[in-house]
Amino acid sequence: MTENITAAVLIIGNEILSGKTQDANVRFLGESFQRLGIVLAEARVIRDEPEIISAVLNECRKRYTYVFTTGGIGPTHDDVTAESVAQAFGVELVLDEEAVRRIGRGSRDLNTARQKMAMIPEGASLIDNPLSHAPGFRIENVFVMAGIPSIARAMFAAIENDLEHGKPIESRSIELYAREGDFAEALEAIAARHNDVEIGSYPFSREGRFGANIVVRGTDPVRVEEVLSEITATLAANS
Amino acid sequence: MTENITAAVLIIGNEILSGKTQDANVRFLGESFQRLGIVLAEARVIRDEPEIISAVLNECRKRYTYVFTTGGIGPTHDDVTAESVAQAFGVELVLDEEAVRRIGRGSRDLNTARQKMAMIPEGASLIDNPLSHAPGFRIENVFVMAGIPSIARAMFAAIENDLEHGKPIESRSIELYAREGDFAEALEAIAARHNDVEIGSYPFSREGRFGANIVVRGTDPVRVEEVLSEITATLAANS
Repeated sequence: MTENITAAVLIIGNEILSGKTQDANVRFLGESFQRLGIVLAEARVIRDEPEIISAVLNECRKRYTYVFTTGGIGPTHDDVTAESVAQAFGVELVLDEEAVRRIGRGSRDLNTARQKMAMIPEGASLIDNPLSHAPGFRIENVFVMAGIPSIARAMFAAIENDLEHGKPIESRSIELYAREGDFAEALEAIAARHNDVEIGSYPFSREGRFGANIVVRGTDPVRVEEVLSEITATLAANS
Repeated sequence: MTENITAAVLIIGNEILSGKTQDANVRFLGESFQRLGIVLAEARVIRDEPEIISAVLNECRKRYTYVFTTGGIGPTHDDVTAESVAQAFGVELVLDEEAVRRIGRGSRDLNTARQKMAMIPEGASLIDNPLSHAPGFRIENVFVMAGIPSIARAMFAAIENDLEHGKPIESRSIELYAREGDFAEALEAIAARHNDVEIGSYPFSREGRFGANIVVRGTDPVRVEEVLSEITATLAANS
């Protein structure tokens, strides 16, 4: 499969790296990209430090079609994403009047901390936040979103139609309670015959039993279905 | 805080990037590193492709004290971690007789696919797998573990004592149902006075209400407790 539209996700947050919080944004974004025909090339969880954020952002925004960040755009002292993005692009943070207006709509007390959320890199455009008003922003191919999953989802919904879409990646799977070692050779032979789809085997352990999800992915739903049927028939005959 | 022992986690798996599977290894490893006084500098989810895996591994193993990988060490065609690690280190994959013996203990049929799991980079030592026999391995500062969370945990337990430990990172937190914008200024003033601890504010939304976890981290438990008490007293007085 050749795919041209690529993305990286940067999860900005010490709370994820410390194990305090379980990330939920990679999964939802990964699912969304499949639907939109965008290949998620990598996801990185990085620390809340401007030098790190700006370096990783500059690496990724050159390499991929899009970069999506989540986290670090709130009003507290450890929210450093906006300044890091400005640093990466070599632009200033400027007070955005429209952002001030939106944040003011959600809160009577537009104090210094809340005004910080209206400081946006010069040249960025706002991403709507229907849940808690403080906006995200887009600058070139970089989309900066909130870390709270419900807000990240709402922001992604607001910008989804601005993205270039590829052919949706269809995915079908079967779940087998079998040991991978027992079907790996048969599966490899099938995979070798079908280079137009991607075949993955993802083992799991559930209540003490081992099994695997076998997933077929591709842009042609007919081919995905055909190959999955072949796998199902072959592995059922083998077991 | 100056910390000298650092780690990166590489989650190898298209199933995580596609959103099919929720990663659970970053959280558990992050918690473990806190306890061991190791700073988790970054976690990356990357695709099952040898060129990518070996390039990222070479970048990270030079930069950090340790690198831990999960995923891609099974018997199926899409399990390419061992060959990628060998490529990164410029060594051959060799059949490890002890690994053959262990895998044989878990399965009567030691077929070609299962023997693949005994192919280990030259110079690596095995990591015990008490749950399903097929071992992980360590080569220099790189630890290669299974992707299934229960097995990854068991393997980590097997190697934990071989790691250099730092001072455990103590973490205490309070959960507030308050808007970050209402306490951010007070919190920033406290953070500015206490540079020996790290103070983070992690907002959440639960059943339609917004709140935040305020976390204090540091290596001196007395100081962590003191600063948390100051935050609690100050924010309670403000609200």
